[in-house]
Amino acid sequence: MQRTQAFLEESNLDGLLFIGDSLCDSDMFYLSHFLAQDRFTLLMQEKISILVSSMEKGRASKESSADEVISTSQYGVMDKLKASGKPDEAYRQVLVEFLRDRKVRWLGVPFRFPAGIYRHLCRDFQITVLDSPVSHWRAVKAACELDAIRSSQKACEKAMSLAVALIASSEPRGDVLFLHGQPLTSEQIRSSIEISLLEAECEAVDTIVAGGAAAADPHARGAGALPANAPIVIDIFPRSKSSRYFADMTRTVLKGEASLEVKEIYEAVLQAQIAGIEAIRAGISGKEVHSRVLQVFQERGYPEREGCGFTHSTGHGVGLEVHERPALSEAGEILEVGNVVTVEPGLYYPKIGGIRLEDLVVVTAKGCENLTNFERKLDL
Amino acid sequence: MQRTQAFLEESNLDGLLFIGDSLCDSDMFYLSHFLAQDRFTLLMQEKISILVSSMEKGRASKESSADEVISTSQYGVMDKLKASGKPDEAYRQVLVEFLRDRKVRWLGVPFRFPAGIYRHLCRDFQITVLDSPVSHWRAVKAACELDAIRSSQKACEKAMSLAVALIASSEPRGDVLFLHGQPLTSEQIRSSIEISLLEAECEAVDTIVAGGAAAADPHARGAGALPANAPIVIDIFPRSKSSRYFADMTRTVLKGEASLEVKEIYEAVLQAQIAGIEAIRAGISGKEVHSRVLQVFQERGYPEREGCGFTHSTGHGVGLEVHERPALSEAGEILEVGNVVTVEPGLYYPKIGGIRLEDLVVVTAKGCENLTNFERKLDL
Repeated sequence: MQRTQAFLEESNLDGLLFIGDSLCDSDMFYLSHFLAQDRFTLLMQEKISILVSSMEKGRASKESSADEVISTSQYGVMDKLKASGKPDEAYRQVLVEFLRDRKVRWLGVPFRFPAGIYRHLCRDFQITVLDSPVSHWRAVKAACELDAIRSSQKACEKAMSLAVALIASSEPRGDVLFLHGQPLTSEQIRSSIEISLLEAECEAVDTIVAGGAAAADPHARGAGALPANAPIVIDIFPRSKSSRYFADMTRTVLKGEASLEVKEIYEAVLQAQIAGIEAIRAGISGKEVHSRVLQVFQERGYPEREGCGFTHSTGHGVGLEVHERPALSEAGEILEVGNVVTVEPGLYYPKIGGIRLEDLVVVTAKGCENLTNFERKLDL
Repeated sequence: MQRTQAFLEESNLDGLLFIGDSLCDSDMFYLSHFLAQDRFTLLMQEKISILVSSMEKGRASKESSADEVISTSQYGVMDKLKASGKPDEAYRQVLVEFLRDRKVRWLGVPFRFPAGIYRHLCRDFQITVLDSPVSHWRAVKAACELDAIRSSQKACEKAMSLAVALIASSEPRGDVLFLHGQPLTSEQIRSSIEISLLEAECEAVDTIVAGGAAAADPHARGAGALPANAPIVIDIFPRSKSSRYFADMTRTVLKGEASLEVKEIYEAVLQAQIAGIEAIRAGISGKEVHSRVLQVFQERGYPEREGCGFTHSTGHGVGLEVHERPALSEAGEILEVGNVVTVEPGLYYPKIGGIRLEDLVVVTAKGCENLTNFERKLDL
């Protein structure tokens, strides 16, 4: 790839080295399309080489897009282990030979590279620790990545409509929602969301279904009976099992009677979201988008104060990770065509709970395309 | 905890610092019981302190077992960010103040600590990179951890019985298995396994249902129609969503006519597994257990040769990770009471496929307790 070469030349490096498992390190998955729970090594030069255990060689050769799949047994890892008795030492020796074979002298490693290996490799190579360029590349989505995100978003919307339908069909009795004579719980809604996602070949590490005071904490998952006459936040962020791409959306709904205060807060969040979405275009900074949203809240009399109100940032990139570049926050960078970001203002108060609305949009030259096709409506 | 103090005193450290997300770093989850997808900081001293974003403070205070939950906003992260414009620099400044407030001068960091932060902290602290003691602590399970593993194992067995029943009820037509007039596929079996696991509040990142030649690669997931008259490997390793503990088991089954060769290979794997399980007790090394298994294969005429035969190690620890300490391999350490390990010999040949049997056992003083309660039978 051209950008790889440009990066290596600019940084004056013979290669960029990653060590980790691609289940956790999305840069490694992005570069290799090899999904592995166990640690492996990836060297980015003009071509991509991966170094895996002999047990993974077959699967890696089949599934990975790497140009070269090398097994540690080709570097005699077992003999080295027998000689030293230390797995880490044996692995280090393999690594040094693997890198020398690929003419590496000036080596880059990303910020999150393991310190234990970094320290040893410093003896044999000239090492620069740097911000991985891959997270920047990942922020601009190719057409096939957009397709993958659209597909996860579809699964997300299907699950959301099931959840909303369940709440809509419940009835308020006192302070609690009932369905078929039983209190309707966060767990029930979450379970129907997850089965729906599974049927669409998606996994949900976590899903928020939180009502009433519990939802005043924007990250609380929710548990137990859901409240009547109070806002319920539903935040779903599924990941496709095949593509590994996420989607992300939030709706807030209420069954029963909404107080005037809740209605006003909902309207403020809605207007803030609309202002955020309207501000987005290539060339504006994420910081500027966040400021516009803040401004709407301030104008409507909802400043952040003592940990209440709008307590988080406006949004974040979504792709192989549910939170990735670029941020729509105080530290937000300039947006580019092909960025995929959430726009998710919310207001939180201990006595009322939380109200949040979240859409997923792709940045275009003159604005953005909203990937979310789902009604925003408080009262069910 | 006493072992924490003993470790810090022996290593001459004021604290051990972790930075990462506890979804990927099981040591961090083990020490804090705080599950987070986003990066946070954990300092292990006599007590456990975690440093999280202000948005995570509420949930962390509720869910985590840490003695102290600190928000980065208590160290003015936003002001620092506004001053420097660099999130990493702002975080480093917060970290230095956080560590100084806790009287840290001699600091330990684990092998996988991010090199980018390690390099900066070296200016302000005396840093030792070390093998995290936590992965050793995690290898010896407490009673509540064993309960969690047993519970995941139950879910695993329920899913396995569904899978085996589906294959048993299929019928061989030519080289392929049919069910209800359609070829029975790996995907179908995997889907019924996953729905069963989800109902038991478990997630399955990956499940192997591989038949015939495809199963000659021990890590291949399997795809398409399942073969008749050939072994089918089913390997299920679910993780409980609530406890985060894994289980792990494998069975190999066949529908139709088994060749004499396949029957003999199955018998060799079974005898090797029995020998491995019988060898296990506290005080023996994982290397010794692995040797016993190798010996059975050699005696029965199945040596490893040119990447065929018994191509992997005998087993691995299971807990918060599906592969953790201790290993039953060439590098296997001494086993201790409370270790939970798999015993999973297998034989693999390109023309025949794979046959593997895997049970999960707890090491006891005089032997082991088998946590697996599931028939081993080739012919259905």
